[in-house]
Amino acid sequence: MDNKNKDLYKPFLQTRRLAPENQESPIHFLRQWITPDQYHYRRNHFLYPYLPQEAFFLPIAGEVERPTVFRYQDLLSMPFKTSAILLECSGNKRSYFRPRVYGEQWQDGAISQGVWKGVPLCHLLALTGVKTTAVEVVFEGYDYGPRTDLEGVFSFTRSLPINVAIHPDILVAYKYNGSAIPFKHGYPLRLIVLQWYAMASVKWLKTITVINHPFQGPFQSIDYNYYPYKDSDIGKRPVTTININSTIQQPLEYTVLGTGVHQIEGIAYTGQGVITQVELSFNGGKDWEQATLQQDPSQPYTWTHWTYTWHASQKGEYTIMSRAKDCTGRIQPEEAEWNRKGYGYNAVATIKVKVE
Amino acid sequence: MDNKNKDLYKPFLQTRRLAPENQESPIHFLRQWITPDQYHYRRNHFLYPYLPQEAFFLPIAGEVERPTVFRYQDLLSMPFKTSAILLECSGNKRSYFRPRVYGEQWQDGAISQGVWKGVPLCHLLALTGVKTTAVEVVFEGYDYGPRTDLEGVFSFTRSLPINVAIHPDILVAYKYNGSAIPFKHGYPLRLIVLQWYAMASVKWLKTITVINHPFQGPFQSIDYNYYPYKDSDIGKRPVTTININSTIQQPLEYTVLGTGVHQIEGIAYTGQGVITQVELSFNGGKDWEQATLQQDPSQPYTWTHWTYTWHASQKGEYTIMSRAKDCTGRIQPEEAEWNRKGYGYNAVATIKVKVE
Repeated sequence: MDNKNKDLYKPFLQTRRLAPENQESPIHFLRQWITPDQYHYRRNHFLYPYLPQEAFFLPIAGEVERPTVFRYQDLLSMPFKTSAILLECSGNKRSYFRPRVYGEQWQDGAISQGVWKGVPLCHLLALTGVKTTAVEVVFEGYDYGPRTDLEGVFSFTRSLPINVAIHPDILVAYKYNGSAIPFKHGYPLRLIVLQWYAMASVKWLKTITVINHPFQGPFQSIDYNYYPYKDSDIGKRPVTTININSTIQQPLEYTVLGTGVHQIEGIAYTGQGVITQVELSFNGGKDWEQATLQQDPSQPYTWTHWTYTWHASQKGEYTIMSRAKDCTGRIQPEEAEWNRKGYGYNAVATIKVKVE
Repeated sequence: MDNKNKDLYKPFLQTRRLAPENQESPIHFLRQWITPDQYHYRRNHFLYPYLPQEAFFLPIAGEVERPTVFRYQDLLSMPFKTSAILLECSGNKRSYFRPRVYGEQWQDGAISQGVWKGVPLCHLLALTGVKTTAVEVVFEGYDYGPRTDLEGVFSFTRSLPINVAIHPDILVAYKYNGSAIPFKHGYPLRLIVLQWYAMASVKWLKTITVINHPFQGPFQSIDYNYYPYKDSDIGKRPVTTININSTIQQPLEYTVLGTGVHQIEGIAYTGQGVITQVELSFNGGKDWEQATLQQDPSQPYTWTHWTYTWHASQKGEYTIMSRAKDCTGRIQPEEAEWNRKGYGYNAVATIKVKVE
């Protein structure tokens, strides 16, 4: 037996729930810039859907000039875009809210990134033509089931404002990392909405409908809204783009380290513009030092990997904090904005370690 | 695609650290009484060892009448015992201590059970004869490496008092669940010490040495001791048998449930005697109700699975607590005894859920 065999040491998805399947990516143990398929986080509201033959036909209807059913095969030969895109569940880091909130208790791993290839949605909408009455575009998935708070059965359906939907980089995707999209991630067709939390990137895309009023489905009007108060809906506002955020991948929380040089590393990301700076503090936020950023300017919709070489010569307990900034001037707050359903947690990342 | 396909919904080990490999069993998602090999928790102090040819020869030496090297092949044809045995890392549930403690941040899953087959250690000691000067028996594993707190390199080595070592159910095991022990769990030979925390069950067994004094290796005299104080070693005492404990497997912490009937289930276990009772409270510990126990009296070294049918007719937030009792009169405490290295956490299990 060879103890240097890398196959001996493999991380796994972290199970939050089995059916529907909700599992985190082992983000603390991944160094790849692109998340391998088997490590992409899985987030589902319902059991996996049954896919009928019609899943290979995508109708676009409603407030359009020329309602059209696009065939999967035809989509494959249309103009396409390929881009690396980070997807993050808006509930990522939910378990860190204080007071605690109910829902899937995600830690840091409801985030992954990969290379998506597909037809720009705006190209399809140009083919169908959009009436001037259009207000929103509704995307329905094949997955459906019951909810705890309402009677009946619902499909997972979300909308985008028409002015967002026409962004040239939003894709009706058919490939992930060079292959057909894995079933669990939306095969055969998935909407991919860059920079928005991933509830917008509807899997197993069934229909696209342009409507002349705001969409009111429960995943639009109940879930995926920030509710600032526990017992009142005052101040409710929709979850949209990804908040500026950073995660310390290594070392892990409450690790014991020896004295010496340690590499601190992590990721930083934002849903507006690009990351310009990641800073670390070792004294509770009084002083901040620059981390080194690894960025690919040609891939603006991905995370930035950062590193910092730490000379831990003094024994003792340390609090290490990371804080990201983006080009729009946003910066991670000391405390995340508490909200009843636990979306968008993005406080400064903080871990404790002991050097002995 | 068939959404009823059970293979679609599989849990994984939960990664705490890669090298050395420390991964939890997905205990909340396992219903089997015997943990399948791939879901047995993995706990290592060092990288996996290289196994030389000598790993198939087990020397017993020291304070014995007839020092002997036992061949693996010969052990296979000696008198044997087969029993289902629960192994629990003494750091299981460490992450629940308040104040927090350093070390692997195990949640509930550093526990698994399986069927171990091997030669009773007392049979081997009877063959070698034990001198009256014998005080402890020392077990060395093939795994070794550096520590953060000491210079040099150490093997993982543990001792048992001679009066414990002669327990007729302690095994030099060579099979797990009917097959050779998986490499990661100690192939070819592993000591299996029932009812003790699993640091006693030395993997990749290299040598057994009977000594006439207390053993002082760092995994005996530094680690695996309860230190009641943060900054003093006063009151230090060794970690030995498993504390009485219970875990709520389902529902999970901070889950949202619909109104209706829900099955609450979990496990309870003890390192002394057997579980006699598991009680649940829904009002913060004021009233306690009986759970139904599933036990196999012929397998006393395993956990007891328990269930409770909960009629959740009222909407609201609930705190659910579980508390186990054993036949020696031990009962889970409201708070675990805090100790600096975080061993033996066994407070009443508590979760919050919301019914809507």
